[in-house]
Amino acid sequence: MNGAKALLKTLTGSGVEVCFTNPGTSEMHFVAALDEVPEMHAVLALFEGVTTGAADGYARIAGKPASTLLHLGPGMANALANMHNAKKARTPMVNVIGDHATYHRGLDAPLTSDIETLARPMSHWVKLARSSRDTAPLAREAVQQAMSNNGQIATLILPADSAWDAADEAAPLLEKPVAPIPAQSQIEAVAAAIKQAKNPALLLRGSGLEADGLELAGRIADGSSARLMCDTFAPKLAQGAGRVRVERIPYFAEQIVDHLQGVDLLVLVGTQEPVAFFAYPDKPSRPVSESCPMINLATPEEDSKTALSILADMINPDAPVAEARRAEQGAWDAPSGDLDLVKVGQSLARLLPEGALLADEAATSGLFVTAPLAQAAPHTHCALTGGAIGQGVPLATGMALAAQKAGNAPTVCLQGDGGAMYTIQALWTQMREKLHVINIIFANRAYQILNIELMRVGAENPGPKALSQFDLTNPEISFVKLAEGLGVPAYRPETAESFEDILRHCLATPGPHLIEVMC
Amino acid sequence: MNGAKALLKTLTGSGVEVCFTNPGTSEMHFVAALDEVPEMHAVLALFEGVTTGAADGYARIAGKPASTLLHLGPGMANALANMHNAKKARTPMVNVIGDHATYHRGLDAPLTSDIETLARPMSHWVKLARSSRDTAPLAREAVQQAMSNNGQIATLILPADSAWDAADEAAPLLEKPVAPIPAQSQIEAVAAAIKQAKNPALLLRGSGLEADGLELAGRIADGSSARLMCDTFAPKLAQGAGRVRVERIPYFAEQIVDHLQGVDLLVLVGTQEPVAFFAYPDKPSRPVSESCPMINLATPEEDSKTALSILADMINPDAPVAEARRAEQGAWDAPSGDLDLVKVGQSLARLLPEGALLADEAATSGLFVTAPLAQAAPHTHCALTGGAIGQGVPLATGMALAAQKAGNAPTVCLQGDGGAMYTIQALWTQMREKLHVINIIFANRAYQILNIELMRVGAENPGPKALSQFDLTNPEISFVKLAEGLGVPAYRPETAESFEDILRHCLATPGPHLIEVMC
Repeated sequence: MNGAKALLKTLTGSGVEVCFTNPGTSEMHFVAALDEVPEMHAVLALFEGVTTGAADGYARIAGKPASTLLHLGPGMANALANMHNAKKARTPMVNVIGDHATYHRGLDAPLTSDIETLARPMSHWVKLARSSRDTAPLAREAVQQAMSNNGQIATLILPADSAWDAADEAAPLLEKPVAPIPAQSQIEAVAAAIKQAKNPALLLRGSGLEADGLELAGRIADGSSARLMCDTFAPKLAQGAGRVRVERIPYFAEQIVDHLQGVDLLVLVGTQEPVAFFAYPDKPSRPVSESCPMINLATPEEDSKTALSILADMINPDAPVAEARRAEQGAWDAPSGDLDLVKVGQSLARLLPEGALLADEAATSGLFVTAPLAQAAPHTHCALTGGAIGQGVPLATGMALAAQKAGNAPTVCLQGDGGAMYTIQALWTQMREKLHVINIIFANRAYQILNIELMRVGAENPGPKALSQFDLTNPEISFVKLAEGLGVPAYRPETAESFEDILRHCLATPGPHLIEVMC
Repeated sequence: MNGAKALLKTLTGSGVEVCFTNPGTSEMHFVAALDEVPEMHAVLALFEGVTTGAADGYARIAGKPASTLLHLGPGMANALANMHNAKKARTPMVNVIGDHATYHRGLDAPLTSDIETLARPMSHWVKLARSSRDTAPLAREAVQQAMSNNGQIATLILPADSAWDAADEAAPLLEKPVAPIPAQSQIEAVAAAIKQAKNPALLLRGSGLEADGLELAGRIADGSSARLMCDTFAPKLAQGAGRVRVERIPYFAEQIVDHLQGVDLLVLVGTQEPVAFFAYPDKPSRPVSESCPMINLATPEEDSKTALSILADMINPDAPVAEARRAEQGAWDAPSGDLDLVKVGQSLARLLPEGALLADEAATSGLFVTAPLAQAAPHTHCALTGGAIGQGVPLATGMALAAQKAGNAPTVCLQGDGGAMYTIQALWTQMREKLHVINIIFANRAYQILNIELMRVGAENPGPKALSQFDLTNPEISFVKLAEGLGVPAYRPETAESFEDILRHCLATPGPHLIEVMC
């Protein structure tokens, strides 16, 4: 067995059974070994940004890491933006970066670059396999690191000779790392603080936003006056009819200030202090009032759900969650007439099947589309976590692959047109893998958020050159043609009735689809 | 004036008059200042990989740096692959990376990352503008660095408050950095070595491959027995009828060994020792024989052309280049029948107008297409220098912008289909800027080079999973639809006659075009 096979067998033996790939010459032995390790599902992408976005989506739904295979420094560079998003989501991920053979690395060949340095900002763990005997133990360490601290990015650099030379047996992970439970004294302190506060709030992220985590949070809220909140961009949120409702913190800092008005205790549950997404002149970067203390129930690295369970038993033992705390099933008439974003949201909320997955990079369009979804059938919502646009379609790709393996409901991708153009290549992988994804592209033909932000940062009297920087009308983009060019059937409905008909068709028809919404 | 305006005025005052942009919120003051600095041409791209590829192409043709405007770490990450290619080409480039305001950088907001560390591997110079008073002097330093050592990548990180706070006047570059001329004693040593050698060769790159540099090399060759060679992937080569011919070193290491057989002195002129592109088991990484000494006429950082001129005067004073050393004008009949790559190359060589620009990322297809071009009308050939595919279409975009400003001939982009899919968004910018580019996509529907490489690395009996990693037929991609989706007219000729008709039309019709060649 060579180093590549030992690595692959270690990955699959550790539960890492998907590899999103965009290989080159230095990865040829890894590629050749794929046929010897049937447990590994290799999913080809046409661009590396798709691989890490998809690995992120897969892990968020499957609950275990996927791997990627990337080609030296530039191949990894193309993957870094979505690696960044995954890092901010605390998604477990194992990246394998092929490199020149160890004896070739010092020759300054055209593709030579400093991969370690490049990997570090977007990785929690970076190591180099200096020999083929290292690949199995390092792959085990990579998986262990990926699964530690509730999810980390592990990047293993694999020189070509470490892949092709002889190796020892695979070294699969024996025990899955377990997130530590916060100290009893810490949880007691939180309980006491909540009891003392007049208007406390729990800010949740991670396992606290799973359906059962929210049940625990609901019991705590019932037994106190605590409000339940989540970050603006949570990696994964169980929402929909019957689920415990949670308030999403708004995007702009001054809105967060308003939202937290009167809150006199902020309990952080698997998350950190909310801060403004960007700085603006004369606006706060830290919107939490100085008179509102913050206390950790669980750090992002700790076991939030168990901490919530212990806290719920302290504050409200045995009581079930009050029904009023659960989202009701919404009722909307079938929308009609000219299509607009509100009607898109209503049709989505009407038709979304139970268990559906939502990848949300709708950006400004999301303000109008996503509100009714909280009362749709129960589903899973995954947001863009690191602000690097171009995640939505790849994320949906990985989510749908996880759903396909589990026999689950379809994935809906809500995607702004600006962001869609960064990684549109993901459509091809969706078709190749026959993934059931409905990609809804909101084609307002602008970096719309920047038209808003230009005003907000205080840039006065914008001129035509400035405004042209946000304008996507020249030339006109056709997402229908782009999708068809990548083999995916596509539609551009003009009316609300037509949108709902097409959406119904797409939800009932396996495989990928694209709907271009022109508003 | 604020820091952004001081920065922009410093750039334009230093001759940096183009900025390829993909901005976000943290760059809003830079964007707002664009209208106050009319000398700066801002060119929007839909993806950051386009910006650095285009900046590279622009600088290779214009002979001066372009700038880019990128959005924090992830925006820069998307630009790094083509920054890598530009670094290997020694292209001067000034990147401006917007960042959070200085006081916001430590808050771990979603888009926060370690930009400095990320920038370093693909930059020669990285600095942070800690205050708005720094932007003008640092912009000057960035331009100076970009123009030093025959071209460097300078990356300036611009926190939002350094852009929006008040600044001093612009600080344009006063003197263009000049590459040092090698010591007279070094040139004399080269002359002596050439005279002593039986079979010397000059390996040229940089200014030695410009038309007048090749004239000087031709004189040296005439006055000695020296062969003239260039790197496999040279940033810029003047070629075509009437130009001094130069042998291109082949791609694979064992071919380089054959090519250099008998050479007993390798004179490096603005380049470094040729090495294998990749390592392979049991194949050499350093193909130059140990019995062939190498000597520098000029390092890549030195003035090759002046060194060639001094050496030519030593070896062959006053003599003009022998006519036999110049490429003849080729004569090809109009190809007919089924289209193939050889016929594509013949039609190109027949129709290419004098002064045309060629961006070449044809990969394996190039083996068949580019040979006749050495006898086409004189033109400029630019290759993929860093091996990071996805450069061709952006490179052509920047080259065509430089040509547009100079009133020059069209740009032809020779692009493999695999590489085209990384940065296909560049087509949109071509149309937006009405650039005269003929993008020829070679659609063999495979990562064809990897089918070859898999055999070469010794991976035996490839299985279906391995082979599927190079197969782009499932689903079928239509580059015609992709181009049309991005607003660019596109064609798919089936015969050689039809290809030539379409090519003639495209060469005569300003604006971008795409021709999908299905072979």
